[in-house]
Amino acid sequence: MSDPLKYLLDESRLPEAWYNIAADLPVPPPPPLDPRTLEPLPPEALQALFPDELIAQEMSAERHIAIPEEVRDILRLWRPSPLFRARRLEKALDTPARIYYKYEGVSPAGSHKPNTAVAQAYYNKKAGIRRLATETGAGQWGSSLAMACQMFGLECEVFMVRVSHDQKPYRRALMELFGATVTASPSVRTAAGREILARDPECSGSLGIAIAEAVEVAAGRDDTNYALGSVLNHVLLHQTVIGLESMEQMAMANDYPDTVVGCTGGGSNFAGIAFPFLGEQLRGGRPVRLVAVEPEACPSLTRGRYAYDWGDTAKLTPLVKMHTLGSTFIPAGFHAGGLRYHGMAPLVSLVKDLGLTEAVGLPQLECFSAGIQFARAEGIVPAPEASHAVAGALREAIRCKEEGKSEAILFNLCGHGHFDMQAYINYFAGKLENYAYPEHEIAMALAGLPPVPGQ
Amino acid sequence: MSDPLKYLLDESRLPEAWYNIAADLPVPPPPPLDPRTLEPLPPEALQALFPDELIAQEMSAERHIAIPEEVRDILRLWRPSPLFRARRLEKALDTPARIYYKYEGVSPAGSHKPNTAVAQAYYNKKAGIRRLATETGAGQWGSSLAMACQMFGLECEVFMVRVSHDQKPYRRALMELFGATVTASPSVRTAAGREILARDPECSGSLGIAIAEAVEVAAGRDDTNYALGSVLNHVLLHQTVIGLESMEQMAMANDYPDTVVGCTGGGSNFAGIAFPFLGEQLRGGRPVRLVAVEPEACPSLTRGRYAYDWGDTAKLTPLVKMHTLGSTFIPAGFHAGGLRYHGMAPLVSLVKDLGLTEAVGLPQLECFSAGIQFARAEGIVPAPEASHAVAGALREAIRCKEEGKSEAILFNLCGHGHFDMQAYINYFAGKLENYAYPEHEIAMALAGLPPVPGQ
Repeated sequence: MSDPLKYLLDESRLPEAWYNIAADLPVPPPPPLDPRTLEPLPPEALQALFPDELIAQEMSAERHIAIPEEVRDILRLWRPSPLFRARRLEKALDTPARIYYKYEGVSPAGSHKPNTAVAQAYYNKKAGIRRLATETGAGQWGSSLAMACQMFGLECEVFMVRVSHDQKPYRRALMELFGATVTASPSVRTAAGREILARDPECSGSLGIAIAEAVEVAAGRDDTNYALGSVLNHVLLHQTVIGLESMEQMAMANDYPDTVVGCTGGGSNFAGIAFPFLGEQLRGGRPVRLVAVEPEACPSLTRGRYAYDWGDTAKLTPLVKMHTLGSTFIPAGFHAGGLRYHGMAPLVSLVKDLGLTEAVGLPQLECFSAGIQFARAEGIVPAPEASHAVAGALREAIRCKEEGKSEAILFNLCGHGHFDMQAYINYFAGKLENYAYPEHEIAMALAGLPPVPGQ
Repeated sequence: MSDPLKYLLDESRLPEAWYNIAADLPVPPPPPLDPRTLEPLPPEALQALFPDELIAQEMSAERHIAIPEEVRDILRLWRPSPLFRARRLEKALDTPARIYYKYEGVSPAGSHKPNTAVAQAYYNKKAGIRRLATETGAGQWGSSLAMACQMFGLECEVFMVRVSHDQKPYRRALMELFGATVTASPSVRTAAGREILARDPECSGSLGIAIAEAVEVAAGRDDTNYALGSVLNHVLLHQTVIGLESMEQMAMANDYPDTVVGCTGGGSNFAGIAFPFLGEQLRGGRPVRLVAVEPEACPSLTRGRYAYDWGDTAKLTPLVKMHTLGSTFIPAGFHAGGLRYHGMAPLVSLVKDLGLTEAVGLPQLECFSAGIQFARAEGIVPAPEASHAVAGALREAIRCKEEGKSEAILFNLCGHGHFDMQAYINYFAGKLENYAYPEHEIAMALAGLPPVPGQ
């Protein structure tokens, strides 16, 4: 047992501060705009949805933001998470690459999402809020927020994308076990939902629609705020514990990643693992190659436009500059529900626009195949979302083999697939297929971008 | 963060040897008997089912048996598992008790079962076996053996208790993902299954029936052996890594358990955590109170007889002396599928007969309620089986509060409930109820015990 398989950190080594990439980027992030005036949004405009401390984090350019003790006290129930060297996978691939993965599936909800859910519940509770409304795709975010709300004594209302709601009753049950109320989206509970249903009563939903519903509920009540599981700057900030821990763990392994790989839906797990390494590079440290892996069937980073757009389909949110397929884009009902978002985190988009990360869109069959290969070697069954990162890492490892290069590849295994076995059942039954949108469909969705000058 | 929540061991501290309680018990374990001659079974009689090294472990009185490096090399993918101090639960209960739990849900299959699956697959592979046949209740054992077989390149055939097969398609999918073939039991594949189905075509199955089917398949083919997920001495032996690690981790916490609690179906997870502590006591060390928690609806330890009985319903196995409800006893279809066995591990039974452990049978509604209370405090959703241990620990913690005693309670959280959300759905829907068998039904099943003199 001379070559370790995993690197553990004691809970005393849980990071004491989050890392904010905005402090190290060569340009400031473009501000969100008021959709009516097209002027930069004043922080007050967000107060209907978020507590002041989260708004401050959203706008902050401070490099380090202290993690409150109350938040660390819950995070340490499962953090620091382990970092593994995938020696069995390396052997199966016969690759000279050194493959590492950070495993976020050890959280009680089975994914990285509780990292920000706990922080958001804490700041809202501190601000006197009684209830949080949110959306969820695969259910990973909803169950994470439900757990965090339970722990801070908040009510939790979750709008769950209908396709996931129907396919994943167990995720729904998990939210309800933690005391949340769950509604399939689009729903008749909100004006946004009713409008969609009037046009398409069979609509399978999307993250954009569910966001619109949750925002509507939160904006309409003083005691209720909104919580988002990805995309926003403060969410990405909270996820940087992943990368900060990974840096320590890579040091324990006497190694450093040449390439860091993560899957991107809204962008938070990718940013969580990648930004601390990117920050090191931007401050003159060792360079690192970043690879964002998205589904071919929802290709915001690889085929979308870097432009101002609404975050939701109902055009209720401020405009943010991001890689987007247009807010009316509703991706096909593929199985990585957590990656079904028309846009991308503004910070990840900016990093992409600056040429600081690569991006690749992968077909879902390749991702399932990679997930199964991974499970058979390492034991852990990846969530369909996480299998995109696995597939991206496998491509890198195979490239290393072809090129005869011994590089270090680190990827984020952001969640386990124990709630997603129906997707694997469908895969084995041959019911899944790849889907790439024709150019004209993407062009059509992009035609609906808001009239911001210069785009 | 001065009071740790969890105690981690580096993989280099994975135990190097299993602990065998037979070495320290005041009497030798009663031998298994040949059901035809009622004479002690010669080791050769087991060779149709097991490799020699496992048979040797089954009969061994050696205190320590080295864990092969090939086995440790896979166990360390997730071991040592964490030991938690349940501070949030203690606070919620307002108890002076110090509650610790060992968490086996971190294994890729989500339970303690891979601890023995890996060892059994290894010894069979080493003996030249090509295929393993087994049974599974809730699916935790089957998925664990499927994973272990995949890792050692063995085929795996699983007979899954029909009630679980139908209620838990995701567990079945997990087995298939690892390459196993899965058959609902009772099945028409075996004579044992056909006989049961002829009497009751709607039979929901039991572990006893599924064992009979797997044994029949294994006995009929030279290249196929049988693997059992609990009950047998060598299985309990392999699970002692749980207790051995716990002893180290309790020392890290500068504490020692007054009471060790585990749930009992076949007995292996209870023995795994309890026997190393019991051994310490038997060698003159610190005394410990053991509490085995079983379902009220399958009360082998609390209401069964300590007698020789068949391990399966088809009366194919040797006779073993254990607490049994009679091999024809088919428990009600309650949700802790892994606890639906008519008998109990002979070593656990002997320990109970010697007065070295207590046992309690709990109603399932209390267990679900305890599991939910635990999840809301600690985040982790227990498997329905594990919720029996949670409920047992809660009873102890409440007793401590009533008596004003600050005792240390350690329990084994042997698996997470991510595959068992249907059971929670049914619980919340009010579909579950408690069930205690009337005395005459138990007496009737016990009337079918084999004619061993003196019982």
